[in-house]
Amino acid sequence: MEVIVADNAGFCFGVKRAIKMANDTMDQAPAGVKALGPLIHNPQVVSAFQRRGLTVVSELEEVESESTVIIRSHGVGPEVKDDAVRRGLKIVDTTCPFVTKAQQYASKLIEENYKVVMIGDQNHPEVIGVVAHTGNKAIVINTVAEAEALKFIPRMGVVFQTTHSIAHVQEIVGALLKRGKEVRVFNTLCGATTSMQKTAVELAPDVEAMVIVGGRQSANTAQLAEVCRRVNPRVYQVESAAEVREDWFTGLRRIGVSAGASTPDEVIAEVVERITQIEPAGAGA
Amino acid sequence: MEVIVADNAGFCFGVKRAIKMANDTMDQAPAGVKALGPLIHNPQVVSAFQRRGLTVVSELEEVESESTVIIRSHGVGPEVKDDAVRRGLKIVDTTCPFVTKAQQYASKLIEENYKVVMIGDQNHPEVIGVVAHTGNKAIVINTVAEAEALKFIPRMGVVFQTTHSIAHVQEIVGALLKRGKEVRVFNTLCGATTSMQKTAVELAPDVEAMVIVGGRQSANTAQLAEVCRRVNPRVYQVESAAEVREDWFTGLRRIGVSAGASTPDEVIAEVVERITQIEPAGAGA
Repeated sequence: MEVIVADNAGFCFGVKRAIKMANDTMDQAPAGVKALGPLIHNPQVVSAFQRRGLTVVSELEEVESESTVIIRSHGVGPEVKDDAVRRGLKIVDTTCPFVTKAQQYASKLIEENYKVVMIGDQNHPEVIGVVAHTGNKAIVINTVAEAEALKFIPRMGVVFQTTHSIAHVQEIVGALLKRGKEVRVFNTLCGATTSMQKTAVELAPDVEAMVIVGGRQSANTAQLAEVCRRVNPRVYQVESAAEVREDWFTGLRRIGVSAGASTPDEVIAEVVERITQIEPAGAGA
Repeated sequence: MEVIVADNAGFCFGVKRAIKMANDTMDQAPAGVKALGPLIHNPQVVSAFQRRGLTVVSELEEVESESTVIIRSHGVGPEVKDDAVRRGLKIVDTTCPFVTKAQQYASKLIEENYKVVMIGDQNHPEVIGVVAHTGNKAIVINTVAEAEALKFIPRMGVVFQTTHSIAHVQEIVGALLKRGKEVRVFNTLCGATTSMQKTAVELAPDVEAMVIVGGRQSANTAQLAEVCRRVNPRVYQVESAAEVREDWFTGLRRIGVSAGASTPDEVIAEVVERITQIEPAGAGA
């Protein structure tokens, strides 16, 4: 099978940075280091860190006093950092700089008396952290219908989950224009995600199917699959090579691959290798 | 022929107000009153005022010192009012309050160091007046392509020509989100125009053709015809009953009518009367 890998597939700047910071921390003082939540949304990467002795905890009270806690790339609310300081913990903050900007804009909008609307998935850790920066006053919406159902908001401030697609936020901002007098938008989309989506969308119509590699919890991987589906309905999402099914490709010859920002290069390479070994249509027999 | 007139067709609040102010002015001191540009974009109304002695001028130097000048509903730039004061003229300012708000928002955005983008027709007097309130620094665009062609603008302030349709500005704001980091939008659409468009768009699919009555220079009339065309391709625009052509309605029975915000009730009534007299399909013979 012919396989074409989209440019910009895989690790983004923020993920590389978080992994480097976590590696450096483990190199320096491996004992007792805890990560508050999975570092990034990729099970292979999280497992590799666990093998080095990094424990994932869900609450700060599980971290012993004076030991190190790693804040993951999705960020946390200011109250979590305050709590860590109170507990005397050493903080390694790997929050993606794009997420930090979204937190700062949300916080600025609340200070300037805007009602904040965040376009995102309300259960995603990044969104929970950004909303915490508004004192949990922000409204989270993720569909045009939810935007249209809002009461009128005279001063509306808007931020985006960094991994959303431009097409998704364009539609929802359009609907918000009907619900506000002033609609002040900070475009907090991550440039790396935008480039990754753009190259995948350019590739998708030129191949017979797209395979998107990434963690099932990864928001940017899900968005990547969705934007590809708009131009090519045949899109499969896998976490690893083991999930690739031969019967997906019956009658096909040319497959595109892209991967979420938290997918390691070796996982992408294994998926590519696996698909390459599948017989294309018209070969042999 | 059955004719259904859409709710909210015809004179809006701003036009009624401008006509009343101009009438009051003519009642009090008819001699030497000048209007700077046509009061509203409707030739019948302008003609009626001219018969009462109101002269339309295009420059302030055509107005004699100490006489009265009427500023039309579309508004003017601040330099025009300053000039009128310097010339010792009495000013009757009929600028629509919705247009005044758009001027104020544009001016506020420039003061707060935003690059102002106005979505509108650059040759329309309202747009020329609003842009003058930014010291002529605003960029005027009216299509998605023009939005996409802009250089990146870190701090972008956006206002709309008041008579544009929400669908039109939604599309263009969507494109602007790609060209700015902060995109601060003041929704300056006129509520009356929005209602007028909404009721016409609701009526249009239920009739076989729509007739839109209004001045050919009237931006809101043109937008009204355009939004109707999105749901019913058979839309005719006329300035008066004399322009209605019988052959438009061959084979039809049920016609919808709406009218721009500057169209007098009597002009609408004449058009309705004219269409009503046309034989519907299947009648007689």
